[in-house]
Amino acid sequence: MRYSQMLIPTVKEVPADAEVPSHQLMIRAGFIRKLASGTYTYLPLGWRSLLKIINIVREEINASGAQEILMPLLQPLELWEKTGRDVVFKEILFRFADHHGRLNTLSPTAEEVVTSLVADEIRSYKQLPINLYQINAKFRDEFRPRFGVLRSREFIMKDAYSFDATTEGLDESYRKMYDAYCRIFDRCGLTYVIVEAESGGMGGTDTEEFMVVSDTGEDILVRTEDGSYGANLTRAEVDPPAGTGKAGRDAPPTEEVHTPGTGSIEAVCSFLGTRPDEMIKTLIYRAGGTTVAALVRGDHEINEDKLHNACAAGDVELADEQTIRQVSGADVGFAGPMGIAEKVHALIIDHSVAAMATGIGGANKTDYHVKNIVPGRDFPLEGENVVVGDIRTAVEGDTHGGKKLQFSRGIEVGHVFKLGTKYSEALSATFLDEQDNEKPCIMGCYGIGINRILAAAIEIGHDEAGCILPVNIAPFEVLILPLGDSEAVAAEAQRIYDELIAAGGDVLLDDRAARPGVKFKDADLIGIPLRIVVGQRGLEKGTVEIKRRKDAEAVTVAAGDAVGEALRVLAEMKKT
Amino acid sequence: MRYSQMLIPTVKEVPADAEVPSHQLMIRAGFIRKLASGTYTYLPLGWRSLLKIINIVREEINASGAQEILMPLLQPLELWEKTGRDVVFKEILFRFADHHGRLNTLSPTAEEVVTSLVADEIRSYKQLPINLYQINAKFRDEFRPRFGVLRSREFIMKDAYSFDATTEGLDESYRKMYDAYCRIFDRCGLTYVIVEAESGGMGGTDTEEFMVVSDTGEDILVRTEDGSYGANLTRAEVDPPAGTGKAGRDAPPTEEVHTPGTGSIEAVCSFLGTRPDEMIKTLIYRAGGTTVAALVRGDHEINEDKLHNACAAGDVELADEQTIRQVSGADVGFAGPMGIAEKVHALIIDHSVAAMATGIGGANKTDYHVKNIVPGRDFPLEGENVVVGDIRTAVEGDTHGGKKLQFSRGIEVGHVFKLGTKYSEALSATFLDEQDNEKPCIMGCYGIGINRILAAAIEIGHDEAGCILPVNIAPFEVLILPLGDSEAVAAEAQRIYDELIAAGGDVLLDDRAARPGVKFKDADLIGIPLRIVVGQRGLEKGTVEIKRRKDAEAVTVAAGDAVGEALRVLAEMKKT
Repeated sequence: MRYSQMLIPTVKEVPADAEVPSHQLMIRAGFIRKLASGTYTYLPLGWRSLLKIINIVREEINASGAQEILMPLLQPLELWEKTGRDVVFKEILFRFADHHGRLNTLSPTAEEVVTSLVADEIRSYKQLPINLYQINAKFRDEFRPRFGVLRSREFIMKDAYSFDATTEGLDESYRKMYDAYCRIFDRCGLTYVIVEAESGGMGGTDTEEFMVVSDTGEDILVRTEDGSYGANLTRAEVDPPAGTGKAGRDAPPTEEVHTPGTGSIEAVCSFLGTRPDEMIKTLIYRAGGTTVAALVRGDHEINEDKLHNACAAGDVELADEQTIRQVSGADVGFAGPMGIAEKVHALIIDHSVAAMATGIGGANKTDYHVKNIVPGRDFPLEGENVVVGDIRTAVEGDTHGGKKLQFSRGIEVGHVFKLGTKYSEALSATFLDEQDNEKPCIMGCYGIGINRILAAAIEIGHDEAGCILPVNIAPFEVLILPLGDSEAVAAEAQRIYDELIAAGGDVLLDDRAARPGVKFKDADLIGIPLRIVVGQRGLEKGTVEIKRRKDAEAVTVAAGDAVGEALRVLAEMKKT
Repeated sequence: MRYSQMLIPTVKEVPADAEVPSHQLMIRAGFIRKLASGTYTYLPLGWRSLLKIINIVREEINASGAQEILMPLLQPLELWEKTGRDVVFKEILFRFADHHGRLNTLSPTAEEVVTSLVADEIRSYKQLPINLYQINAKFRDEFRPRFGVLRSREFIMKDAYSFDATTEGLDESYRKMYDAYCRIFDRCGLTYVIVEAESGGMGGTDTEEFMVVSDTGEDILVRTEDGSYGANLTRAEVDPPAGTGKAGRDAPPTEEVHTPGTGSIEAVCSFLGTRPDEMIKTLIYRAGGTTVAALVRGDHEINEDKLHNACAAGDVELADEQTIRQVSGADVGFAGPMGIAEKVHALIIDHSVAAMATGIGGANKTDYHVKNIVPGRDFPLEGENVVVGDIRTAVEGDTHGGKKLQFSRGIEVGHVFKLGTKYSEALSATFLDEQDNEKPCIMGCYGIGINRILAAAIEIGHDEAGCILPVNIAPFEVLILPLGDSEAVAAEAQRIYDELIAAGGDVLLDDRAARPGVKFKDADLIGIPLRIVVGQRGLEKGTVEIKRRKDAEAVTVAAGDAVGEALRVLAEMKKT
């Protein structure tokens, strides 16, 4: 392809509204242009990259045995009502009536559509397992789209859905996708980590995320140094502290103190001159129709996903003021651990609270706190409705399996979910097993963010001058730069171009009548992995320069060897 | 690929809501399933066909020099307001507010988006010509979707947009697309005709449609027998009759007759005992702020596109009752040609009216008509505000250039438009020419309905038993049918399969443990162009059978020659 024939509108200035490097560089390199908040047009270079990514994804997902289909983007809202996801996804669902007044949504994902398809077409265990996938647009009505294509309102996703007769079958389907994902991200040249995650609004059990570690990621990853354990922050399990709940048995008796107007940890600490880690936070939740109390240390954040798992009583949400007042007998901010177990369906105590020698907590009395509360003495650590467990978010210093946890940020590029039977039950996707019993299909779902792969590759592959793209997803593999207006240079560049194309190379020839400085700047910006510079002076000595985008120095080779050398370097790049 | 590993849910029954063969067969062959009114899921076989079509389109459009991009489907309605197409396309535009309350639409086409992109990125004539295209989903909120994927609410379209500095440039860009379209439809195995068309809501001048002739088409095509002229019915130009407006000069004088309550051609004819072709219909229109009168023969339909062109005064629409009453001085249904020229901005007379010896028309007086109206005597055929031209829709018996017109139905699979500067002016897509003058880009736009190619191929390629698909767009090129449960048969089928795959063949192996009858039925239904049958009896004689889907009889060949023969036949199919 000739540079002069392509729309590659590079830009010097960093766009004002672009916060992260990938967003800045995708605009500056002429890969994308913004249409409206959270929607982007892919220009020829950017789209070329995406097409390469799509091809890699398609090849590997096909190789895993999944079958490609295409489902509508326009979906009846009615179908989403059947699984309750019209409510769960409400915040991000587009929602509109058509000319007949029927409500529609735009697919953010396709569990409902694919499950109703399977409900209609699959009858017998003999037709299972089956894995159906598609690669197409998805929509999320993000209130605050950001970071360019990393969080946009319209994007391209590969979404696959597996249907199995048994949980062992699901495990195998899941493993196949997991392995395909590893091959895909490897081929895309990404370095990534795989972490456990929470399933959020999707339902289901096991789920893992494929994360590209990057400071600009929206997710926080928690991993042991040796990589043996990794999880999303919302999911990361931490070891309980040693010596749980024994240390304070000989402490002085509890003492009620007047703490007027101190309804927050900060306010009490400031009033009493104590530290947050000496405090016991008592939080009242509604959980599936019941009321539960949760205790976490004052310096910790409660983790509602973990709380949800610990109390096993349906979705959890903070109780309203009236309920808190009813349970604690006090204004909001003064609930405390003592005597609370009798007032609630369950008392869930974080390990770190159970391990405190003594703590300060609310007095269940407005404007009062209690000092010298000893876990196990002043409130129970055991009992029919008492659970001690891991219900807080991990923090620096925590361990998992005895190994210290490290924190980093990541960009989610893929996730794999074991969904179970939530959707197949709601939409009657059942099959007859060998004994003619009707059973719901056991599902998994598997997503890859196509646009995010490109953005993540740029987040981890760039320098001051521009993108440094992996060879398999760069818009072109080789960029040839003829410098100056000598006819000999142009002819030699053309010869190298023709020979590389003939050898199956994917080559861009910068045939513009532009100054060398402009050509070099654009070359660095668009990040083509291999560059061949043909200049007048070199050519007089019979040489050209070859340089990897990621290397600082070029290598001088005989012009006649340029094609062979370029092909050798490309092959090497593709191997690693 | 193995049949047992694919979701190919064939159906015996003709679906109740499927009227046309392609809709019926795409459901029955397991290519598609309906999700909701006008939206379809493509199952593995159907999607495989579409992917092949997309690849052909992409290859040929790339070869023409156009550049592929991807524009958002979600588009700000505001942008459509700038060109007025929010009103023109109102009937089919989805329209909805996002969480910020901003109005959006779903792209039915992308003139606005691509033109604003070009407005931002193109500055100089040196950057022109440029042709940008995309292949993605499009949406139309059809009130009555029908004929399966032929008229649906969501479909895949290739849409290209050319920008030129000169009209000669546009002609060349248009010609390149035209030629690429011919190659695309040829490769897709379609027989098609190219006809002139009206541009409808798109603006612009020249436009041609690529039509697959089929009785189930929604468009009516009008062509001369020799193919030298072809047009969409809305556009087809007809010759004026011989001897225009001379024959009736010696007719008796006009005579007013009382025709109470006869406000329609049928009613007057019935009342007076005359034929529609003896009547002169007088229609009052609003045209760009003025009022015009149009005369057509009673048996003819006025063609508003032609009227629009003839009066050259902006969009035309039938006048309201009040205007008609004001102009004619009578109730609706009694306007007539006499004296009307003075009451309107323009009087547009169809050739066929001008050629009448005498006619009967409204009297411009409620409940009265006039007999013996002689064109040229009783109303003018010439004058400052009088135009005689072609303003009616062609009918059987008409000629064009002296050649008789023939009528047929067609499915539009592609169209090419010369748009001119409508969009570039509205959205300021200008460039500086060689003299530094700012000028609007001259645009063309070019669409191909991807899904319609498949449906049209089935409309013209099927028989009672199922689809007969062209080799380049069939889901597979070859289907191998091993019959019975003999291991030797299975092994031989497998060998042929392996060798064909190794030779680059695109092969489906029906490895199901199904009866031969079931396999043959499904084979006919899904329409793979070449079939190899491996049976026990043949194999004992060392033979297999090869049959083209479109042929009645199979050819028996030595099993060892099967692969070579299959490849030879395929190569032959691909040539034609």
